[in-house]
Amino acid sequence: MAVDVPGLVEQARQGKPRAVARLISLVEGASPQLREVMAALAPLTGNAYVVGLTGSPGVGKSTSTSALVTAYRKAGRRVGVLAVDPSSPFSGGALLGDRVRMSEHASDPGVYIRSMATRGHLGGLAWSAPQAIRVLDAAGCDVVLVETVGVGQSEVEIASQADTSVVLLAPGMGDGIQAAKAGILEIGDVYVVNKADRDGADATARELNHMLGLGEARRPGDWRPPIVKTVAARGEGVDEVLEALEKHRAWMDERGVLAERRRARAAREVETIAVTALRERIGDLHGDRRLGALAERIVAGTLDPYAAADELVAGLTGE
Amino acid sequence: MAVDVPGLVEQARQGKPRAVARLISLVEGASPQLREVMAALAPLTGNAYVVGLTGSPGVGKSTSTSALVTAYRKAGRRVGVLAVDPSSPFSGGALLGDRVRMSEHASDPGVYIRSMATRGHLGGLAWSAPQAIRVLDAAGCDVVLVETVGVGQSEVEIASQADTSVVLLAPGMGDGIQAAKAGILEIGDVYVVNKADRDGADATARELNHMLGLGEARRPGDWRPPIVKTVAARGEGVDEVLEALEKHRAWMDERGVLAERRRARAAREVETIAVTALRERIGDLHGDRRLGALAERIVAGTLDPYAAADELVAGLTGE
Repeated sequence: MAVDVPGLVEQARQGKPRAVARLISLVEGASPQLREVMAALAPLTGNAYVVGLTGSPGVGKSTSTSALVTAYRKAGRRVGVLAVDPSSPFSGGALLGDRVRMSEHASDPGVYIRSMATRGHLGGLAWSAPQAIRVLDAAGCDVVLVETVGVGQSEVEIASQADTSVVLLAPGMGDGIQAAKAGILEIGDVYVVNKADRDGADATARELNHMLGLGEARRPGDWRPPIVKTVAARGEGVDEVLEALEKHRAWMDERGVLAERRRARAAREVETIAVTALRERIGDLHGDRRLGALAERIVAGTLDPYAAADELVAGLTGE
Repeated sequence: MAVDVPGLVEQARQGKPRAVARLISLVEGASPQLREVMAALAPLTGNAYVVGLTGSPGVGKSTSTSALVTAYRKAGRRVGVLAVDPSSPFSGGALLGDRVRMSEHASDPGVYIRSMATRGHLGGLAWSAPQAIRVLDAAGCDVVLVETVGVGQSEVEIASQADTSVVLLAPGMGDGIQAAKAGILEIGDVYVVNKADRDGADATARELNHMLGLGEARRPGDWRPPIVKTVAARGEGVDEVLEALEKHRAWMDERGVLAERRRARAAREVETIAVTALRERIGDLHGDRRLGALAERIVAGTLDPYAAADELVAGLTGE
């Protein structure tokens, strides 16, 4: 049954969580109305400030995200939270999980929380997270917090979709070396050492400072990623994180970096969608005889795979 | 400088190792003569029987491969060996390594050994291994042994490029569970429990037998993957492996399965090359203004990413 897309978008604008949930479901899946939804959202997007939060399991990401939500709500902002777990087999709105992890915000109409798991999903995170961000943006969220579990390629991808990336660490977890391995030291705009009341917090911050080369000379105007110590569970240091985020945003805005990042992000997004579409078209050829006929000729030795690929591409591109 | 491709192919046919090495280098890289080489090889291919060997580190893959080479040489066959290590940063002919690992075959003109490492390579293993197999096939190898290190997606891909896949295990390595996780139990046509003189070999074989469901009823004519116990270092059981391989080959031949597998392989190969080519074309757009202009419109909210991807694909395919 066709969905009333304009109606749904209007309801989402009014902050109705069911409408937001429905729209995210529509953009996550391969809904026939996907394009209609995307077109309706486009003019409403571009207002949300997208903050990525990443770090190894156990650093306190959920607690930190929740504390940031509290802080942003105090400042009167509407907040969307996208909790991405690439390893979870569940997809769509894991509502119970969402409510448990952020129960203090469950009844706040100014907060929308969504879990997302995309294992096995076509195009994976690179595909679906940006669309969900777009929905939250269009729904009027001033800030969208994208929390990703773990440290890996997918997480780095997600981080690259944020305006500002926050990398979380905790003392005594050997995070420094792990982080370096995962290349996560290259993606942080703001670093947070959470659980700073524990032994080793200063050492972690020092090690991080050293690894980031923050002691070294920088060109004037360069962004110098701050390291903020927090105890998110008690709300300590969270205002400083907010301040660091606002500073980074202002720094990007002044220099046109924000617009540049968003353009680069949009270009990557288009690329991902286009490549997936082209791959699907080739996949469709399994259904007809073209690919089979080419394979037959290769096995017979009358055609080589490159010439066959050229024929296939020419067939697709009408050359 | 342009290479004399027909001359090189002729020399490779005569078993000159330098010519084979040169051809593999040409097909591995993005040589301007890649297509010329592939076209020249096509009519000479289709004779080699391709055997994939895979298993976790420590099961004795190199020793087993070497023992199989000895056995095939005794039977008068020309043998090519492709040792693929997806984790190695070295690419191309790691000559010293090749000679050390298979020193007993180094001076045998009926054996060609090549190491291949493809980390970071465009399209990875799925791209370059089949082309190298093609060179060894065209060069007159009766058998090509493709040895892959580790158990993972790439290895499964490689195995899927073989006519017959051999999965190696060793006692007491917890291989059973590992193997099941990696889905490797689905790809073996022949299973080898190497180091069978060690404690636990029978238990490993039993566990494997159980996991493969070999005790269960099968339809008549179904291939029943045999489990062979070997001590490759002493050559024990290797003749039985050869026998199992020949049985599998004959079984496939009788039922048209071999031709079917090769067609499916060729189709996948063409697909990989075509998708990579299309992806490259999109990548080229970063260089011109099209993608940037689309991204600009997305950021401005006048276009959504799906409509932008449609424009991009239409631009490529001339629709």
